[in-house]
Amino acid sequence: MKIARVIKSGKETFGLIKGDKIATKDDIAQSTGIPIPLNVRDFLFDGWYEEILPKIDEIEFKHDLSEFDILAPIPNPNKIICLAFNYKDHAEEQKLTPPKEPAIVNKPRTALNGTNAEIICPKFVKELDYEIELALIINKKCKNISEEEAMDVIFGYMILNDVSARDIQEMDKQFTRAKSFDTFAPCGPWITTKDEIDDPHNLKLLTKVNGTVRQDSTTSNMFIKIPSIISILSESMTLEPGDIISTGTAAGVALNNPNIPYLKDEDVIEMEIEKLGSIKNTVKFVD
Amino acid sequence: MKIARVIKSGKETFGLIKGDKIATKDDIAQSTGIPIPLNVRDFLFDGWYEEILPKIDEIEFKHDLSEFDILAPIPNPNKIICLAFNYKDHAEEQKLTPPKEPAIVNKPRTALNGTNAEIICPKFVKELDYEIELALIINKKCKNISEEEAMDVIFGYMILNDVSARDIQEMDKQFTRAKSFDTFAPCGPWITTKDEIDDPHNLKLLTKVNGTVRQDSTTSNMFIKIPSIISILSESMTLEPGDIISTGTAAGVALNNPNIPYLKDEDVIEMEIEKLGSIKNTVKFVD
Repeated sequence: MKIARVIKSGKETFGLIKGDKIATKDDIAQSTGIPIPLNVRDFLFDGWYEEILPKIDEIEFKHDLSEFDILAPIPNPNKIICLAFNYKDHAEEQKLTPPKEPAIVNKPRTALNGTNAEIICPKFVKELDYEIELALIINKKCKNISEEEAMDVIFGYMILNDVSARDIQEMDKQFTRAKSFDTFAPCGPWITTKDEIDDPHNLKLLTKVNGTVRQDSTTSNMFIKIPSIISILSESMTLEPGDIISTGTAAGVALNNPNIPYLKDEDVIEMEIEKLGSIKNTVKFVD
Repeated sequence: MKIARVIKSGKETFGLIKGDKIATKDDIAQSTGIPIPLNVRDFLFDGWYEEILPKIDEIEFKHDLSEFDILAPIPNPNKIICLAFNYKDHAEEQKLTPPKEPAIVNKPRTALNGTNAEIICPKFVKELDYEIELALIINKKCKNISEEEAMDVIFGYMILNDVSARDIQEMDKQFTRAKSFDTFAPCGPWITTKDEIDDPHNLKLLTKVNGTVRQDSTTSNMFIKIPSIISILSESMTLEPGDIISTGTAAGVALNNPNIPYLKDEDVIEMEIEKLGSIKNTVKFVD
């Protein structure tokens, strides 16, 4: 399934997506007779999603998705963990040694952003960059997960653009502030549940800026695979339902690439991951 | 005032502290006739704290604080921002160049810990270290705060121990994972409201490990002062009520100090900041 959080005339809701149609929370409740909680996190992680699954064929997808604006799928995750670097092609372009364990940055929830929204960047940032990433969403509270158990704690996947202010990153050495600006975590467009993804390590990634291809890679280029990422991170941190783990980016960013310009005002970034849909964001520099 | 979150026989509450006495939420409601919300964040940031202030003399501090265990003051902040380094004496010992802007790390809320609790560390960490820090708590949603306005968005202060796994930090280069382990953010013992602190840049800091003084400094050693920290961080991030900003540590950590050992099992860390009280934590290494 695909689950999106959406808004129309100022009213937020969420629903299931099929093609270009959506069954909203209220539609699901009406079709199935099951009361659906107000909050998408409760719906996804407190048993309600599982409860409607047997009745999925009864659900009427009655609205056009185009009637709604799409929001970031999880509004208030406890963690947004982004791997600092994890792709073979990206390591090659940046002349980095392969990592043995995942170096990470935690983005704050105030960085979340949806598709078709602006990446709003203060003008003092001179080197604004993009990073397409496969992000996974955790389905339960867990700690010390083995690699064998790791896929069981994933709810689903989405795209995440780990927007980064490279000049701040270079100044601070620590990447956190550079990646923590409001709107610097566009994600979505929706959550695709893991049953729809046979192999998360075999998905094509594509980033275009103003129509020009910038990142064209595949998740098979990850050094540290998803079960290992989850296992190692859960040795230190309790993971919680709705936590987002973004698994690193591929080659083709502007950083250290003299042929690729940093982002400018009005640039349009389109990111697509096979089977997960696409997100599109416009850059807006502000005083 | 001092506000603590406490627990007794499995029942959590919060209250105001005076000396060794506490007036719990229920005591405050009974004394003042004002209904007090269940959640300490609602109490502090949704106007209730201001509402009881005029009736503060009517409040009976009827319980001994020693009857309760003290918890981390804010249970679920949206951000726990820790400055990577900001003290002159620490810069000297670590041979670091003074920072112009605050390099930061975001700890997850799962790292929060109270006083008189264990810092629980997996045995694979070989270089466990402590960092006493003055932490401030934000009182409202705000963005682009000037230095002149910055003190107005502070609710109060507390101690925060920015516990760090130095071997992980060295391996990752990014400090986030090393500082994000569960229990690696002991803080408190309570929030001291800002009206009690004439000058936050003139407070003594003291860390003892097993009774031996390790950090003995003052907040006057900060390179980047609090108004500047808030102003610069709020240029990139929306700050929210309950957000914690920890302002960096002083000299005397084990990192790069051949005369100071890393933490061992059963070590007792006591941290005291003038006017803010003290926190005490025991190190426990686990498989």
